[in-house]
Amino acid sequence: MTAQQTDPWLLTPGPLTTDARVREAMLRDWGSWDSDFRAMTAEMRARLLDVAHADPAEWASVPMQGSGSYCVEAMLGSFLPPDGKALVLANGAYGQRAAKTLAVMGRAHVVIDKGDYLPPRGEEVSAALAADPAITHVVAIHCETSSGILNPLEEIAEATAAAGRKLLIDSMSAFGALPLDARSLPFEAMVSSANKCIEGVPGFGFVIARKDALEAAAGNAHSLSLDVHDQWAYMEKTGQWRFTPPTHSVAAFLKALELHAAEGGQPGRLARYSRNRDVLVEGMRAAGFETLLDDRWLSPIIVTFFTPADPAFDFARFYEGMKARGFIIYPGKLTVVPSFRMGCIGALNESVMRAAVAAATETLTEMGVRSAAPPASALEERRRHNAA
Amino acid sequence: MTAQQTDPWLLTPGPLTTDARVREAMLRDWGSWDSDFRAMTAEMRARLLDVAHADPAEWASVPMQGSGSYCVEAMLGSFLPPDGKALVLANGAYGQRAAKTLAVMGRAHVVIDKGDYLPPRGEEVSAALAADPAITHVVAIHCETSSGILNPLEEIAEATAAAGRKLLIDSMSAFGALPLDARSLPFEAMVSSANKCIEGVPGFGFVIARKDALEAAAGNAHSLSLDVHDQWAYMEKTGQWRFTPPTHSVAAFLKALELHAAEGGQPGRLARYSRNRDVLVEGMRAAGFETLLDDRWLSPIIVTFFTPADPAFDFARFYEGMKARGFIIYPGKLTVVPSFRMGCIGALNESVMRAAVAAATETLTEMGVRSAAPPASALEERRRHNAA
Ligand SMILES: Cc1ncc(COP(=O)(O)O)c(C=O)c1O
Ligand SMILES: Cc1ncc(COP(=O)(O)O)c(C=O)c1O
Repeated sequence: MTAQQTDPWLLTPGPLTTDARVREAMLRDWGSWDSDFRAMTAEMRARLLDVAHADPAEWASVPMQGSGSYCVEAMLGSFLPPDGKALVLANGAYGQRAAKTLAVMGRAHVVIDKGDYLPPRGEEVSAALAADPAITHVVAIHCETSSGILNPLEEIAEATAAAGRKLLIDSMSAFGALPLDARSLPFEAMVSSANKCIEGVPGFGFVIARKDALEAAAGNAHSLSLDVHDQWAYMEKTGQWRFTPPTHSVAAFLKALELHAAEGGQPGRLARYSRNRDVLVEGMRAAGFETLLDDRWLSPIIVTFFTPADPAFDFARFYEGMKARGFIIYPGKLTVVPSFRMGCIGALNESVMRAAVAAATETLTEMGVRSAAPPASALEERRRHNAA
Repeated sequence: MTAQQTDPWLLTPGPLTTDARVREAMLRDWGSWDSDFRAMTAEMRARLLDVAHADPAEWASVPMQGSGSYCVEAMLGSFLPPDGKALVLANGAYGQRAAKTLAVMGRAHVVIDKGDYLPPRGEEVSAALAADPAITHVVAIHCETSSGILNPLEEIAEATAAAGRKLLIDSMSAFGALPLDARSLPFEAMVSSANKCIEGVPGFGFVIARKDALEAAAGNAHSLSLDVHDQWAYMEKTGQWRFTPPTHSVAAFLKALELHAAEGGQPGRLARYSRNRDVLVEGMRAAGFETLLDDRWLSPIIVTFFTPADPAFDFARFYEGMKARGFIIYPGKLTVVPSFRMGCIGALNESVMRAAVAAATETLTEMGVRSAAPPASALEERRRHNAA
């Protein structure tokens, strides 16, 4: 975003390119017990509620050390009681990881698996809940980062609430950029992490949950470290984290929250990311690449492109060519069709995205790739699925 | 350590005052999938084995996201099989936390609790293991940071090995400063974290374990996030962390490991910390303060002082007086007698410690405290216990 940028731009789903001011906030050391740091924690917690439009009388935010997956596990282990049962809505790697997390914890669950392409729809949720009264909680992925698909959270939340069940949301790669409004969306708890759309550095994540759900979560967790209730109760009492907090990451995140607010909060960020995506998709399509998803499911977070069919294309060489030009891209995570991903999030703007498209075109030429078109089979598969 | 220091010195057990070069290493962003970051991870893992004199043919180091307590839980959950039984040697808050962690996980364990003052000794371990053949693992705290006591790891390790059981070590606040030599000390696995004696910033910790123990740990863990086997197996295969790593903390830690080696590794660091402790203890005693522990159990990590009996002394005012003079101290964590702690670790040297003593003396004067002597009851308790 700034002229001093010399490191490669990270077109990845996080860790991502941060603003220099966010990184500079890490140039100090804080005592984790000291009142200065306690004030930073309190401010962060309040600002997170603001982003979700969550009334502090009814909601609380609880930061948790570790990566995003730790926070998903903490949410599942703390809010799903040991005798509860979860319905996991999966359409990619992160939905599958939520199911695996439940399996390791030994908690009852069923999965609706939509494959790589398609969103779980409200009617499917309603049908599954009607068919199995033992299900107490629904687990949804807001943006499934492995394909970039934006799942229809509102209809999932409505179906869940209509059936009298509770919704747990993994909004890891969406929160702060896509709307998630606690005033209108019925849910129990959600998680995200510091290094996604708020544009902090990694080191921790956070849960935003109803206070009554936090109260009721006492004693549920399978783990001391990942007990959201315990972290919340201790933090409310002392203003401190139970265990050593990632002080520098917290300082960076506070600065990131400030910049997020200055950009106009979630709507402002969404506008920039959407513009990033539009410039990227338009440019890559003009260069001959094809996106995995139809326009209506394309998120402003990350875009999956099919790997070109041309035998001269080699992903490792393409990656190195992009890196040499100052762009770190991301491998694909689809189970069936070869693909790669380019992120739209982080301290990036449309001029960066235009330069990324130019770098992709140059790299293709350098590799001797004549057409970026994917194999016919990939397009056929997409057509078949998107029609469904 | 440097003249530019303007923030308070952290006389705390971590997060601690870091070298400016360590913090400056966080001014870049890294893609976690990229080869540059994979090389950083590999270098860090190799350097950690060096610090423990652990032969890479037999041992592996495995970084884990989260705070130190997460790593302790990961070690316990991964190496103690679900049908195993642990003997926890407790003499303070961290031993107790290990026992609580096992209780939450539902793993069988017994505790030898020595209270606040006294080390668990080899003979006690031998006797407990002889009495209960169901015990498979012993859990020991290297330096119990809540009092600062340095536990006799060698005799504990010998007693454990002699009884054919396995040793798991929490060396959180000791590793890198106190000797822990995999060539001579029989143990299965140990944990520490980035923000202790290696002097990095918080965000992750690490396990150093025998490779055969890592192999055998498959399927033991109660948690996906805290599965050391899974993290190790994935890292060996791909060079990557399973989930998003705290990239900036890792970069800082690599710089910290470099500075650690340049200081002469563990012996060099021990020499500086010991000098810090000697200057601190001598100065504080000259000012009238008394240490909780007899000299032979005083560690070079952190020192517990009794709170003065003088009614003019108030810990909150003492804390603020020290902070105003540029020093953050730490509250006590003893269960019986009022106390406070001052750490000797971090980028501090003896001139900092001398200035800290001067600040303590000034603060006492400012508060109108005439004598820093503790209540007779505290000294009596100490005498009784240390004699035992
Ligand atoms: C939707 C979603 N869930 C979970 C995760 C896991 O987060 P982490 O890699 O920080 O563990 C990610 C990471 O990108 C994600 O995008
Ligand atoms: C011996 C010991 N064990 C465990 C911990 C817990 O580490 P953390 O606070 O990073 O969770 C500490 C922290 O100081 C410690 O000193």
